[in-house]
Amino acid sequence: MRENMKYKKLEEPLLYDGSPIEPFWAFKEHKVKGSSMVAWIGPMNIKPAELIDYEDVGLEIKSGQMMHFIVEHFDRQPADIKTCYHRQRILVMIVKDILGELGINTSRDGDDLYFKGKKLSVSIATCSNSSMKIHFGMNVRDKGTPDDVETIGLLECSKTLDDEKINGLIDKICENYINEIESIEEDITKTKVF
Amino acid sequence: MRENMKYKKLEEPLLYDGSPIEPFWAFKEHKVKGSSMVAWIGPMNIKPAELIDYEDVGLEIKSGQMMHFIVEHFDRQPADIKTCYHRQRILVMIVKDILGELGINTSRDGDDLYFKGKKLSVSIATCSNSSMKIHFGMNVRDKGTPDDVETIGLLECSKTLDDEKINGLIDKICENYINEIESIEEDITKTKVF
Amino acid sequence: MRENMKYKKLEEPLLYDGSPIEPFWAFKEHKVKGSSMVAWIGPMNIKPAELIDYEDVGLEIKSGQMMHFIVEHFDRQPADIKTCYHRQRILVMIVKDILGELGINTSRDGDDLYFKGKKLSVSIATCSNSSMKIHFGMNVRDKGTPDDVETIGLLECSKTLDDEKINGLIDKICENYINEIESIEEDITKTKVF
Amino acid sequence: MRENMKYKKLEEPLLYDGSPIEPFWAFKEHKVKGSSMVAWIGPMNIKPAELIDYEDVGLEIKSGQMMHFIVEHFDRQPADIKTCYHRQRILVMIVKDILGELGINTSRDGDDLYFKGKKLSVSIATCSNSSMKIHFGMNVRDKGTPDDVETIGLLECSKTLDDEKINGLIDKICENYINEIESIEEDITKTKVF
Amino acid sequence: MRENMKYKKLEEPLLYDGSPIEPFWAFKEHKVKGSSMVAWIGPMNIKPAELIDYEDVGLEIKSGQMMHFIVEHFDRQPADIKTCYHRQRILVMIVKDILGELGINTSRDGDDLYFKGKKLSVSIATCSNSSMKIHFGMNVRDKGTPDDVETIGLLECSKTLDDEKINGLIDKICENYINEIESIEEDITKTKVF
Amino acid sequence: MRENMKYKKLEEPLLYDGSPIEPFWAFKEHKVKGSSMVAWIGPMNIKPAELIDYEDVGLEIKSGQMMHFIVEHFDRQPADIKTCYHRQRILVMIVKDILGELGINTSRDGDDLYFKGKKLSVSIATCSNSSMKIHFGMNVRDKGTPDDVETIGLLECSKTLDDEKINGLIDKICENYINEIESIEEDITKTKVF
Repeated sequence: MRENMKYKKLEEPLLYDGSPIEPFWAFKEHKVKGSSMVAWIGPMNIKPAELIDYEDVGLEIKSGQMMHFIVEHFDRQPADIKTCYHRQRILVMIVKDILGELGINTSRDGDDLYFKGKKLSVSIATCSNSSMKIHFGMNVRDKGTPDDVETIGLLECSKTLDDEKINGLIDKICENYINEIESIEEDITKTKVF
Repeated sequence: MRENMKYKKLEEPLLYDGSPIEPFWAFKEHKVKGSSMVAWIGPMNIKPAELIDYEDVGLEIKSGQMMHFIVEHFDRQPADIKTCYHRQRILVMIVKDILGELGINTSRDGDDLYFKGKKLSVSIATCSNSSMKIHFGMNVRDKGTPDDVETIGLLECSKTLDDEKINGLIDKICENYINEIESIEEDITKTKVF
Repeated sequence: MRENMKYKKLEEPLLYDGSPIEPFWAFKEHKVKGSSMVAWIGPMNIKPAELIDYEDVGLEIKSGQMMHFIVEHFDRQPADIKTCYHRQRILVMIVKDILGELGINTSRDGDDLYFKGKKLSVSIATCSNSSMKIHFGMNVRDKGTPDDVETIGLLECSKTLDDEKINGLIDKICENYINEIESIEEDITKTKVF
Repeated sequence: MRENMKYKKLEEPLLYDGSPIEPFWAFKEHKVKGSSMVAWIGPMNIKPAELIDYEDVGLEIKSGQMMHFIVEHFDRQPADIKTCYHRQRILVMIVKDILGELGINTSRDGDDLYFKGKKLSVSIATCSNSSMKIHFGMNVRDKGTPDDVETIGLLECSKTLDDEKINGLIDKICENYINEIESIEEDITKTKVF
Repeated sequence: MRENMKYKKLEEPLLYDGSPIEPFWAFKEHKVKGSSMVAWIGPMNIKPAELIDYEDVGLEIKSGQMMHFIVEHFDRQPADIKTCYHRQRILVMIVKDILGELGINTSRDGDDLYFKGKKLSVSIATCSNSSMKIHFGMNVRDKGTPDDVETIGLLECSKTLDDEKINGLIDKICENYINEIESIEEDITKTKVF
Repeated sequence: MRENMKYKKLEEPLLYDGSPIEPFWAFKEHKVKGSSMVAWIGPMNIKPAELIDYEDVGLEIKSGQMMHFIVEHFDRQPADIKTCYHRQRILVMIVKDILGELGINTSRDGDDLYFKGKKLSVSIATCSNSSMKIHFGMNVRDKGTPDDVETIGLLECSKTLDDEKINGLIDKICENYINEIESIEEDITKTKVF
């Protein structure tokens, strides 16, 4: 019943080109089998063919350095995008919460985080019949982002952040998200239904 | 597709005895039809027969004055408790977020909010085959709570809160929750699936 | 909870080549987001690659002038073809009913309408994981249809029909279908389940 | 895959008191196992405890002589009320259609049929986790109905109807409904999905 | 994703009166939370009010000494009886298989096991909206069973069985069933879908 | 409600190249419409593009002569891989059981059968949104299998088997599987749920 999600942090600065949102990417590319959360730091430049958000068609989705999170869930069969978007919101709210504890007070609009009106993150959720996928990317440095959007990176939001703390932040986000999903599963097993 | 949730604030200080968690309570007692969020300020004293949480069996669940929120969703047929617990978490995180903006920094453990280690809120989610229900209650004043739990009320958390602001807080929580659920529904309609 | 379907009538005589049955066509081609019903008058000539009905493989599916209806529903996640075929039947029965009120008494066999034994319409339902799609096409004039099927057009069924009434008929069909789906959603919220 | 519904016509003038809407009634009371349609002629007087429609609370739901149809479907696990209400609409539209062929032109509002503005029928749909239930009742004679509703019976709608034709009508309605549901199941097995 | 089922063997000779088939019995009576398999040796005498199988109404369902297995699954939300009956069959086939390895060759008819034409076991599956339940009971000794059914107990099937081996048999059945369900979950995470 | 599966045995020695696992193969290639079981004897050599099991990527999956079974189910909408893997296990256990009756005692590990430690069979399950598919292949003769796996064929497992008995075995497997699935459907219609 427990999701028993696996967490893997990649050491290489992998380019996020959109392909990691495909089902089974974690297993096919990184031998991570089952529900999982894979995270790493790297640039982003989404290939048009990999676009998931029909509202983004024709836009540049790129950044020079982001922390990336790829979540995959197999606990609901068939998988559905509605559940997945609920989890995406939970993930973004967890990130906002952790940033707040670091003194970085962001505002949230759906699945986007902003710092002083500047865009800090991108996110999408999708699914196939058998798994649910989430990508969440957050700028580490404000470089390489599209010219027509005001963006910011985490290192510009707080002077006390450094590369080591960025690393700890990635771990903390994954730990809290995984614990949250597990605690939901736990609660189901103690609750009367009608 | 949109949930189109209705919001109703009750003026009377209704006792929360556990019965509002039953499906169709909003319609049968308050003529609110369809997906809805009903809120009010009143005491709580849950009758043993109305207990939903099997871990609470034998415990006193009571408070002298709380803000209560009852959510009912009909957008998933059949309804399921898993989706409902995701929404409960989203609701609790929204509350935590709004409190933070008021300078009340709480910590969260699953569906419980704490202020300086003292319990501020209670919550449960449940469902029948056709609707999903959430109750969230937050102490306004720390009175009438069980002796064996350290509790606190909102008015003890912040000196700038008063009854009028408490009222505005209720509206804000409902508005943000309803908007969040609607924005999730919106996102589904722009997203490619595999 | 309400489906809140949008209705859009296209003015251009778009060729129905089968591609409008694909998920998200209304959004990608006509900026209609969410559950919707798009209608227009135009010819039909389905490309083999766009065939949805495996029993139609190898057949010509064409007509010189039809009224076309494309329905997309996002209210069930995951979407399923069973629900979609129920809605298709409801749509076809609504059309039959409205035609009857115009004095055009048709017979129905599954999703096909006939007038005096001659085929008046074509229809298919399908789905992806996130949306349900229906196409219903009805001959306006009996021209350009396959040689090996006896067909008829609405204008041959009734002498009192003209282009203006054809236009009103399109609106009426969409209005009634949308109202029907919404009334089903309404009924769910007043009904006890076991 | 086929629903393979069984049809049974009861000879006794059973009172419809609301209890036949309960799951497994056909099996427990009439040894009809599996998906089925049971029909009979008899009076109606719904006990308050058997009310399914929360909007009917406090109303008299009664009639001196009706044809009753009880449908139960086990083909969807878990069962859901949304699918069931779609089928209810299909059933009511089939009845309307058959009456039209007999020269009885009714109007329909959701699940209610009217003849010249007078109420001809009642209907409800509901479900448990494992089966979906529909009741459709149509006045044969306009007697014993509530004083505050204008009602009519089939025998008042048409001079050519008699008891034998009423019997044939019951069979025809059941036959057409069962065939419709089966044809939907058939269509699923020939249709490409995305 | 993994079911992570818990296994608990009760030492007391609990009477199976039908109540353990109710949802949350393992948690409420034995503090076993989540998906689980609880087993014990004890008599059976099902109270009419606890009957789950409508075909058993009016029958005596009893035995003087059986090994009992109660399975509860929370991994599918909403739960459904179709999935549960598949698992029941898997459980019964696993038992048959293990008995075969002990030299006890049984025949199976649905969920019943027979040895030389004599009934060895009883079983039922059911569910609520949030959990799926299975009871499987197998006679240890042929005593206290109904007079009108030819029954047999395990100790009559094989001379080499004794109480210690019976105990090992219980563990083996639970271990194999739990492993089977987990291996199914595993297989989902390596399989391409269309 | 009954699955009403069709059974067809192909006479030609069709090569299993992986394509029969695709949805609607039975209908498109062999005019078998609806839920079905198609069986034949033929070689196997799976094209890399047809691989369903991500753990098999890069492996040779081949055999000179196998009995092949292709199952397709349309009874669950939407279809899901979890249900399908439960059925696959039931199929493999039925095969193991029938072989045991022929004196061929195999061991089973998930969906693989072994005779004296040598691999006898291969299997996979998958689904689309509308149907569930299973392939089960069992070596008739141990020829043409990969060099790096110890394999065996049925004719090497038992001296009393011959081509005629192999044919009867195919029929028996299909008959038992189809009956099992139908009996599960039956049991649903007699069972109380909570």
